[in-house]
Amino acid sequence: MRGRFITLEGGEGAGKSTQIRLLAAALESMGKPVIVTREPGGSPGAEAIRALLVTGDTDRWDARTEALLHSAARRDHLVKKVWPALESGQWVLCDRFADSTIAYQGYGHGLPIDELEQLTALTVGDFAPDLTLILDLPVEAGLARAGGRGGAEDRYERMGLDFHRRLRQGFLDIAARHAERCAIIDAGQGPEWVHQAIMAVVSQRLAP
Amino acid sequence: MRGRFITLEGGEGAGKSTQIRLLAAALESMGKPVIVTREPGGSPGAEAIRALLVTGDTDRWDARTEALLHSAARRDHLVKKVWPALESGQWVLCDRFADSTIAYQGYGHGLPIDELEQLTALTVGDFAPDLTLILDLPVEAGLARAGGRGGAEDRYERMGLDFHRRLRQGFLDIAARHAERCAIIDAGQGPEWVHQAIMAVVSQRLAP
Repeated sequence: MRGRFITLEGGEGAGKSTQIRLLAAALESMGKPVIVTREPGGSPGAEAIRALLVTGDTDRWDARTEALLHSAARRDHLVKKVWPALESGQWVLCDRFADSTIAYQGYGHGLPIDELEQLTALTVGDFAPDLTLILDLPVEAGLARAGGRGGAEDRYERMGLDFHRRLRQGFLDIAARHAERCAIIDAGQGPEWVHQAIMAVVSQRLAP
Repeated sequence: MRGRFITLEGGEGAGKSTQIRLLAAALESMGKPVIVTREPGGSPGAEAIRALLVTGDTDRWDARTEALLHSAARRDHLVKKVWPALESGQWVLCDRFADSTIAYQGYGHGLPIDELEQLTALTVGDFAPDLTLILDLPVEAGLARAGGRGGAEDRYERMGLDFHRRLRQGFLDIAARHAERCAIIDAGQGPEWVHQAIMAVVSQRLAP
Protein backbone atom coordinates (compact mmCIF):
# COMPACT_ATOMS: atom_id res chain seq x y z
CA MET A 1 0.00 0.00 0.00
CA ARG A 2 1.22 3.48 -0.93
CA GLY A 3 2.41 5.57 2.03
CA ARG A 4 1.20 9.04 2.95
CA PHE A 5 2.85 12.38 2.29
CA ILE A 6 2.53 14.94 5.09
CA THR A 7 4.07 18.40 4.75
CA LEU A 8 4.72 20.94 7.52
CA GLU A 9 4.63 24.60 6.56
CA GLY A 10 4.96 27.92 8.35
CA GLY A 11 7.24 30.89 8.92
CA GLU A 12 10.58 30.95 10.72
CA GLY A 13 10.60 29.68 14.29
CA ALA A 14 7.16 28.04 14.12
CA GLY A 15 8.60 24.82 15.55
CA LYS A 16 8.41 22.65 12.44
CA SER A 17 11.57 20.67 13.27
CA THR A 18 10.41 19.83 16.78
CA GLN A 19 6.92 18.89 15.65
CA ILE A 20 8.10 16.75 12.76
CA ARG A 21 10.23 14.72 15.18
CA LEU A 22 7.34 14.28 17.61
CA LEU A 23 4.98 13.29 14.77
CA ALA A 24 7.47 10.78 13.39
CA ALA A 25 7.89 9.17 16.81
CA ALA A 26 4.12 8.96 17.30
CA LEU A 27 3.54 7.36 13.89
CA GLU A 28 6.40 4.91 14.48
CA SER A 29 4.88 3.93 17.80
CA MET A 30 1.73 3.02 15.81
CA GLY A 31 3.89 0.74 13.64
CA LYS A 32 4.09 2.99 10.57
CA PRO A 33 7.35 3.10 8.59
CA VAL A 34 8.33 6.79 8.57
CA ILE A 35 10.98 8.92 6.92
CA VAL A 36 11.58 12.55 7.80
CA THR A 37 12.95 14.87 5.14
CA ARG A 38 13.07 18.55 4.25
CA GLU A 39 13.03 21.12 1.50
CA PRO A 40 15.07 22.52 -0.08
CA GLY A 41 17.26 19.41 0.07
CA GLY A 42 16.60 15.82 1.09
CA SER A 43 18.55 14.21 -1.78
CA PRO A 44 22.21 14.73 -2.76
CA GLY A 45 21.31 16.83 -5.83
CA ALA A 46 18.73 18.89 -3.97
CA GLU A 47 21.15 19.48 -1.08
CA ALA A 48 23.66 20.89 -3.59
CA ILE A 49 20.95 23.27 -4.83
CA ARG A 50 20.05 24.10 -1.20
CA ALA A 51 23.61 25.27 -0.61
CA LEU A 52 23.08 27.86 -3.40
CA LEU A 53 19.77 29.01 -1.88
CA VAL A 54 20.21 29.36 1.85
CA THR A 55 23.55 31.16 2.05
CA GLY A 56 24.88 34.46 0.71
CA ASP A 57 23.40 37.94 0.27
CA THR A 58 19.62 38.38 0.56
CA ASP A 59 19.63 39.73 -3.02
CA ARG A 60 21.83 36.97 -4.41
CA TRP A 61 18.96 35.68 -6.59
CA ASP A 62 15.93 37.50 -7.95
CA ALA A 63 12.57 36.06 -6.81
CA ARG A 64 11.92 34.26 -10.08
CA THR A 65 15.36 32.62 -10.17
CA GLU A 66 14.82 31.56 -6.58
CA ALA A 67 11.44 29.97 -7.43
CA LEU A 68 13.11 28.06 -10.29
CA LEU A 69 15.92 26.82 -8.03
CA HIS A 70 13.44 25.69 -5.37
CA SER A 71 11.45 23.90 -8.07
CA ALA A 72 14.54 22.11 -9.38
CA ALA A 73 15.44 20.99 -5.85
CA ARG A 74 11.82 19.91 -5.27
CA ARG A 75 11.75 17.80 -8.41
CA ASP A 76 15.05 16.06 -7.59
CA HIS A 77 13.91 15.36 -4.04
CA LEU A 78 10.63 13.86 -5.29
CA VAL A 79 12.23 11.71 -7.99
CA LYS A 80 15.13 10.42 -5.92
CA LYS A 81 13.58 10.10 -2.48
CA VAL A 82 9.91 10.96 -1.84
CA TRP A 83 8.19 9.05 -4.64
CA PRO A 84 10.22 5.83 -4.17
CA ALA A 85 9.53 5.97 -0.40
CA LEU A 86 5.78 6.45 -0.91
CA GLU A 87 5.75 3.58 -3.43
CA SER A 88 7.39 1.31 -0.88
CA GLY A 89 4.66 2.15 1.67
CA GLN A 90 6.50 4.63 3.86
CA TRP A 91 4.95 7.69 5.47
CA VAL A 92 7.01 10.68 4.36
CA LEU A 93 7.07 13.75 6.62
CA CYS A 94 8.51 16.76 4.85
CA ASP A 95 9.62 20.08 6.35
CA ARG A 96 8.33 22.56 3.68
CA PHE A 97 7.03 21.82 0.17
CA ALA A 98 5.41 23.69 -2.76
CA ASP A 99 3.29 25.93 -0.50
CA SER A 100 6.51 27.54 0.72
CA THR A 101 7.33 28.67 -2.83
CA ILE A 102 3.86 30.22 -3.17
CA ALA A 103 4.20 31.89 0.24
CA TYR A 104 7.83 33.11 0.03
CA GLN A 105 8.21 34.01 -3.65
CA GLY A 106 4.54 34.89 -4.21
CA TYR A 107 3.12 36.55 -1.08
CA GLY A 108 6.57 37.51 0.24
CA HIS A 109 8.34 38.74 -2.91
CA GLY A 110 5.31 39.63 -5.03
CA LEU A 111 5.51 37.15 -7.94
CA PRO A 112 2.07 36.39 -9.45
CA ILE A 113 0.49 33.47 -7.58
CA ASP A 114 -0.99 31.97 -10.78
CA GLU A 115 2.46 31.82 -12.41
CA LEU A 116 3.89 30.08 -9.35
CA GLU A 117 1.04 27.57 -9.45
CA GLN A 118 1.86 26.94 -13.13
CA LEU A 119 5.48 26.38 -12.13
CA THR A 120 4.41 23.93 -9.42
CA ALA A 121 2.36 21.99 -11.99
CA LEU A 122 5.35 21.88 -14.37
CA THR A 123 7.52 20.62 -11.50
CA VAL A 124 5.34 18.02 -9.77
CA GLY A 125 2.43 17.34 -12.18
CA ASP A 126 -0.77 16.70 -10.20
CA PHE A 127 1.05 15.26 -7.19
CA ALA A 128 0.10 16.90 -3.87
CA PRO A 129 0.49 16.20 -0.13
CA ASP A 130 -2.14 14.04 1.55
CA LEU A 131 -2.08 16.53 4.42
CA THR A 132 -0.40 19.89 4.98
CA LEU A 133 0.02 21.15 8.55
CA ILE A 134 0.42 24.93 8.64
CA LEU A 135 2.08 25.97 11.90
CA ASP A 136 0.83 29.49 12.55
CA LEU A 137 2.45 31.97 14.91
CA PRO A 138 2.62 35.78 15.26
CA VAL A 139 5.60 37.00 13.23
CA GLU A 140 7.47 38.65 16.13
CA ALA A 141 7.29 35.49 18.24
CA GLY A 142 8.56 33.32 15.34
CA LEU A 143 11.52 35.54 14.53
CA ALA A 144 12.47 35.78 18.21
CA ARG A 145 12.53 31.97 18.40
CA ALA A 146 14.42 31.59 15.09
CA GLY A 147 16.93 34.28 16.06
CA GLY A 148 17.99 32.25 19.08
CA ARG A 149 19.00 29.36 16.81
CA GLY A 150 22.19 30.82 15.26
CA GLY A 151 23.98 29.29 12.27
CA ALA A 152 24.73 30.51 8.72
CA GLU A 153 21.43 29.50 7.10
CA ASP A 154 19.59 32.65 8.08
CA ARG A 155 19.18 34.36 4.69
CA TYR A 156 15.38 34.38 4.92
CA GLU A 157 15.33 35.43 8.56
CA ARG A 158 17.15 38.65 7.63
CA MET A 159 14.45 39.76 5.20
CA GLY A 160 12.49 42.12 7.45
CA LEU A 161 9.26 42.18 9.41
CA ASP A 162 6.95 43.25 6.55
CA PHE A 163 8.16 40.34 4.43
CA HIS A 164 7.40 37.88 7.22
CA ARG A 165 3.95 39.40 7.78
CA ARG A 166 3.06 38.90 4.11
CA LEU A 167 4.41 35.36 4.43
CA ARG A 168 2.15 34.55 7.36
CA GLN A 169 -0.85 35.97 5.51
CA GLY A 170 0.15 33.89 2.51
CA PHE A 171 0.10 30.62 4.44
CA LEU A 172 -3.30 31.51 5.93
CA ASP A 173 -4.67 32.24 2.43
CA ILE A 174 -3.26 28.97 1.07
CA ALA A 175 -4.94 27.09 3.93
CA ALA A 176 -8.27 28.72 3.13
CA ARG A 177 -7.97 28.00 -0.61
CA HIS A 178 -7.00 24.35 -0.04
CA ALA A 179 -9.03 23.58 3.05
CA GLU A 180 -9.45 19.89 2.11
CA ARG A 181 -5.66 19.41 2.19
CA CYS A 182 -4.50 21.94 4.79
CA ALA A 183 -4.95 22.38 8.54
CA ILE A 184 -3.88 25.46 10.50
CA ILE A 185 -2.24 24.63 13.82
CA ASP A 186 -1.80 27.27 16.54
CA ALA A 187 1.96 27.08 17.03
CA GLY A 188 2.02 29.69 19.78
CA GLN A 189 1.30 27.05 22.43
CA GLY A 190 3.85 24.77 24.08
CA PRO A 191 5.37 21.91 22.02
CA GLU A 192 3.32 19.18 23.70
CA TRP A 193 0.06 21.06 23.17
CA VAL A 194 0.95 21.64 19.48
CA HIS A 195 1.84 17.97 19.10
CA GLN A 196 -1.55 16.90 20.46
CA ALA A 197 -3.30 19.31 18.06
CA ILE A 198 -1.34 17.79 15.16
CA MET A 199 -2.16 14.23 16.26
CA ALA A 200 -5.85 15.09 16.40
CA VAL A 201 -5.77 16.34 12.80
CA VAL A 202 -3.68 13.40 11.55
CA SER A 203 -6.02 10.88 13.23
CA GLN A 204 -9.11 12.52 11.81
CA ARG A 205 -7.83 13.05 8.26
CA LEU A 206 -5.56 10.09 7.62
CA ALA A 207 -6.63 7.47 10.19
CA PRO A 208 -3.12 6.00 10.61
CA MET B 1 19.99 52.86 -27.99
CA ARG B 2 19.29 49.33 -26.82
CA GLY B 3 21.81 46.74 -28.06
CA ARG B 4 21.01 43.53 -29.90
CA PHE B 5 20.83 39.99 -28.54
CA ILE B 6 22.19 37.29 -30.87
CA THR B 7 22.17 33.63 -29.81
CA LEU B 8 24.13 30.75 -31.36
CA GLU B 9 22.58 27.32 -31.18
CA GLY B 10 23.43 23.84 -32.43
CA GLY B 11 24.65 20.40 -31.39
CA GLU B 12 28.06 19.48 -30.01
CA GLY B 13 31.05 20.36 -32.19
CA ALA B 14 29.12 22.69 -34.51
CA GLY B 15 31.79 25.37 -34.05
CA LYS B 16 29.79 27.83 -31.95
CA SER B 17 32.79 29.02 -29.89
CA THR B 18 34.89 29.73 -32.98
CA GLN B 19 32.07 31.50 -34.77
CA ILE B 20 31.06 33.61 -31.80
CA ARG B 21 34.66 34.89 -31.56
CA LEU B 22 34.77 35.70 -35.28
CA LEU B 23 31.38 37.43 -35.13
CA ALA B 24 32.42 39.48 -32.09
CA ALA B 25 35.60 40.61 -33.84
CA ALA B 26 33.67 41.56 -36.99
CA LEU B 27 31.09 43.58 -35.06
CA GLU B 28 33.81 45.30 -33.03
CA SER B 29 35.59 46.27 -36.24
CA MET B 30 32.33 48.00 -37.23
CA GLY B 31 32.51 49.99 -33.98
CA LYS B 32 29.85 48.04 -32.06
CA PRO B 33 30.35 47.45 -28.32
CA VAL B 34 30.17 43.64 -27.94
CA ILE B 35 30.10 41.18 -25.08
CA VAL B 36 30.38 37.42 -25.56
CA THR B 37 28.72 35.15 -23.05
CA ARG B 38 27.33 31.64 -22.74
CA GLU B 39 24.70 29.41 -21.19
CA PRO B 40 24.48 27.77 -18.82
CA GLY B 41 26.59 30.32 -16.95
CA GLY B 42 27.71 33.85 -17.75
CA SER B 43 27.12 35.28 -14.25
CA PRO B 44 28.53 34.10 -10.89
CA GLY B 45 25.21 32.54 -9.80
CA ALA B 46 24.58 30.91 -13.16
CA GLU B 47 28.14 29.53 -13.25
CA ALA B 48 27.51 27.88 -9.88
CA ILE B 49 24.39 26.27 -11.35
CA ARG B 50 26.38 25.30 -14.46
CA ALA B 51 28.77 23.34 -12.28
CA LEU B 52 25.80 21.22 -11.12
CA LEU B 53 24.65 20.65 -14.72
CA VAL B 54 27.67 19.84 -16.84
CA THR B 55 29.51 17.37 -14.62
CA GLY B 56 28.61 14.01 -13.06
CA ASP B 57 26.63 11.00 -14.26
CA THR B 58 24.40 11.33 -17.34
CA ASP B 59 21.43 10.37 -15.15
CA ARG B 60 22.33 12.72 -12.30
CA TRP B 61 19.18 14.80 -12.94
CA ASP B 62 15.89 13.81 -14.54
CA ALA B 63 14.99 15.81 -17.65
CA ARG B 64 12.48 18.02 -15.85
CA THR B 65 14.90 18.89 -13.04
CA GLU B 66 17.50 19.69 -15.67
CA ALA B 67 15.11 22.03 -17.51
CA LEU B 68 14.38 23.81 -14.21
CA LEU B 69 18.08 24.21 -13.42
CA HIS B 70 18.80 25.57 -16.91
CA SER B 71 15.90 27.99 -16.48
CA ALA B 72 17.22 29.20 -13.12
CA ALA B 73 20.68 29.75 -14.63
CA ARG B 74 19.10 31.53 -17.63
CA ARG B 75 17.14 33.89 -15.42
CA ASP B 76 20.16 34.79 -13.29
CA HIS B 77 22.29 35.39 -16.40
CA LEU B 78 19.62 37.67 -17.92
CA VAL B 79 19.03 39.67 -14.74
CA LYS B 80 22.67 40.10 -13.76
CA LYS B 81 24.38 40.40 -17.14
CA VAL B 82 22.39 40.28 -20.40
CA TRP B 83 19.62 42.79 -19.70
CA PRO B 84 21.92 45.43 -18.16
CA ALA B 85 24.31 45.07 -21.14
CA LEU B 86 21.50 45.46 -23.69
CA GLU B 87 20.19 48.50 -21.80
CA SER B 88 23.60 50.11 -21.99
CA GLY B 89 23.67 49.62 -25.78
CA GLN B 90 25.94 46.59 -26.06
CA TRP B 91 25.53 43.79 -28.56
CA VAL B 92 25.33 40.55 -26.59
CA LEU B 93 26.44 37.34 -28.31
CA CYS B 94 25.35 34.28 -26.38
CA ASP B 95 26.48 30.66 -26.84
CA ARG B 96 23.13 28.82 -26.33
CA PHE B 97 19.83 30.14 -24.96
CA ALA B 98 16.22 28.96 -24.46
CA ASP B 99 16.14 27.01 -27.76
CA SER B 100 18.71 24.63 -26.27
CA THR B 101 16.30 23.72 -23.46
CA ILE B 102 13.56 22.96 -26.02
CA ALA B 103 16.01 20.93 -28.14
CA TYR B 104 17.84 19.01 -25.39
CA GLN B 105 15.11 18.41 -22.80
CA GLY B 106 12.21 18.38 -25.30
CA TYR B 107 13.34 16.76 -28.56
CA GLY B 108 16.28 14.97 -26.91
CA HIS B 109 14.74 13.71 -23.65
CA GLY B 110 11.08 13.71 -24.65
CA LEU B 111 9.52 16.34 -22.36
CA PRO B 112 6.41 17.97 -23.90
CA ILE B 113 7.45 20.97 -26.02
CA ASP B 114 4.44 23.04 -24.91
CA GLU B 115 5.38 22.63 -21.24
CA LEU B 116 8.95 23.71 -21.96
CA GLU B 117 7.63 26.76 -23.82
CA GLN B 118 5.50 27.56 -20.75
CA LEU B 119 8.61 27.24 -18.60
CA THR B 120 10.51 29.59 -20.92
CA ALA B 121 7.71 32.16 -20.62
CA LEU B 122 7.78 31.86 -16.80
CA THR B 123 11.57 32.34 -16.91
CA VAL B 124 12.08 35.17 -19.42
CA GLY B 125 8.60 36.70 -19.99
CA ASP B 126 8.23 37.79 -23.62
CA PHE B 127 11.94 38.52 -24.06
CA ALA B 128 13.51 36.79 -27.09
CA PRO B 129 16.72 37.03 -29.14
CA ASP B 130 16.82 39.52 -32.01
CA LEU B 131 18.52 36.81 -34.07
CA THR B 132 19.26 33.11 -33.50
CA LEU B 133 21.94 31.45 -35.62
CA ILE B 134 21.47 27.68 -35.74
CA LEU B 135 24.74 26.00 -36.72
CA ASP B 136 23.70 22.78 -38.42
CA LEU B 137 25.97 19.80 -38.97
CA PRO B 138 25.54 16.03 -39.46
CA VAL B 139 25.59 14.39 -36.01
CA GLU B 140 28.59 12.12 -36.64
CA ALA B 141 30.74 15.03 -37.82
CA GLY B 142 29.80 17.14 -34.79
CA LEU B 143 30.55 14.42 -32.24
CA ALA B 144 33.87 13.64 -33.94
CA ARG B 145 34.85 17.31 -33.62
CA ALA B 146 33.59 17.60 -30.02
CA GLY B 147 35.32 14.35 -29.02
CA GLY B 148 38.69 15.84 -29.96
CA ARG B 149 38.19 18.62 -27.45
CA GLY B 150 38.71 16.68 -24.18
CA GLY B 151 37.88 18.08 -20.75
CA ALA B 152 35.43 17.10 -17.99
CA GLU B 153 32.37 18.93 -19.35
CA ASP B 154 31.30 16.14 -21.67
CA ARG B 155 28.13 14.90 -19.96
CA TYR B 156 25.93 15.69 -22.99
CA GLU B 157 28.43 14.29 -25.49
CA ARG B 158 28.16 10.88 -23.83
CA MET B 159 24.41 10.61 -24.40
CA GLY B 160 24.42 8.52 -27.58
CA LEU B 161 23.88 8.96 -31.30
CA ASP B 162 20.07 8.70 -31.30
CA PHE B 163 19.84 11.47 -28.71
CA HIS B 164 21.99 13.74 -30.85
CA ARG B 165 19.95 12.95 -33.98
CA ARG B 166 16.74 13.99 -32.20
CA LEU B 167 18.56 17.10 -31.04
CA ARG B 168 19.53 18.09 -34.57
CA GLN B 169 15.99 17.53 -35.79
CA GLY B 170 14.77 19.64 -32.87
CA PHE B 171 16.90 22.62 -33.83
CA LEU B 172 15.71 22.35 -37.46
CA ASP B 173 12.07 22.26 -36.29
CA ILE B 174 12.61 25.27 -34.02
CA ALA B 175 14.13 27.19 -36.95
CA ALA B 176 11.12 26.38 -39.13
CA ARG B 177 8.64 27.38 -36.39
CA HIS B 178 10.43 30.66 -35.65
CA ALA B 179 11.65 31.57 -39.12
CA GLU B 180 11.47 35.31 -38.47
CA ARG B 181 13.97 34.98 -35.59
CA CYS B 182 16.14 32.01 -36.68
CA ALA B 183 18.60 31.32 -39.49
CA ILE B 184 20.08 27.90 -40.25
CA ILE B 185 23.79 28.03 -41.06
CA ASP B 186 25.55 25.11 -42.78
CA ALA B 187 28.30 24.44 -40.24
CA GLY B 188 29.86 21.62 -42.27
CA GLN B 189 31.96 24.09 -44.23
CA GLY B 190 35.28 25.60 -43.15
CA PRO B 191 35.27 28.26 -40.40
CA GLU B 192 35.87 31.19 -42.74
CA TRP B 193 33.00 30.11 -45.04
CA VAL B 194 30.68 29.72 -42.05
CA HIS B 195 31.71 33.14 -40.75
CA GLN B 196 30.86 34.75 -44.10
CA ALA B 197 27.47 33.03 -44.10
CA ILE B 198 26.80 34.37 -40.60
CA MET B 199 27.88 37.90 -41.56
CA ALA B 200 25.52 37.83 -44.55
CA VAL B 201 22.59 36.94 -42.28
CA VAL B 202 23.56 39.48 -39.60
CA SER B 203 23.91 42.26 -42.20
CA GLN B 204 20.58 41.45 -43.77
CA ARG B 205 18.57 41.00 -40.57
CA LEU B 206 20.12 43.47 -38.14
CA ALA B 207 21.95 46.00 -40.37
CA PRO B 208 24.73 46.64 -37.82
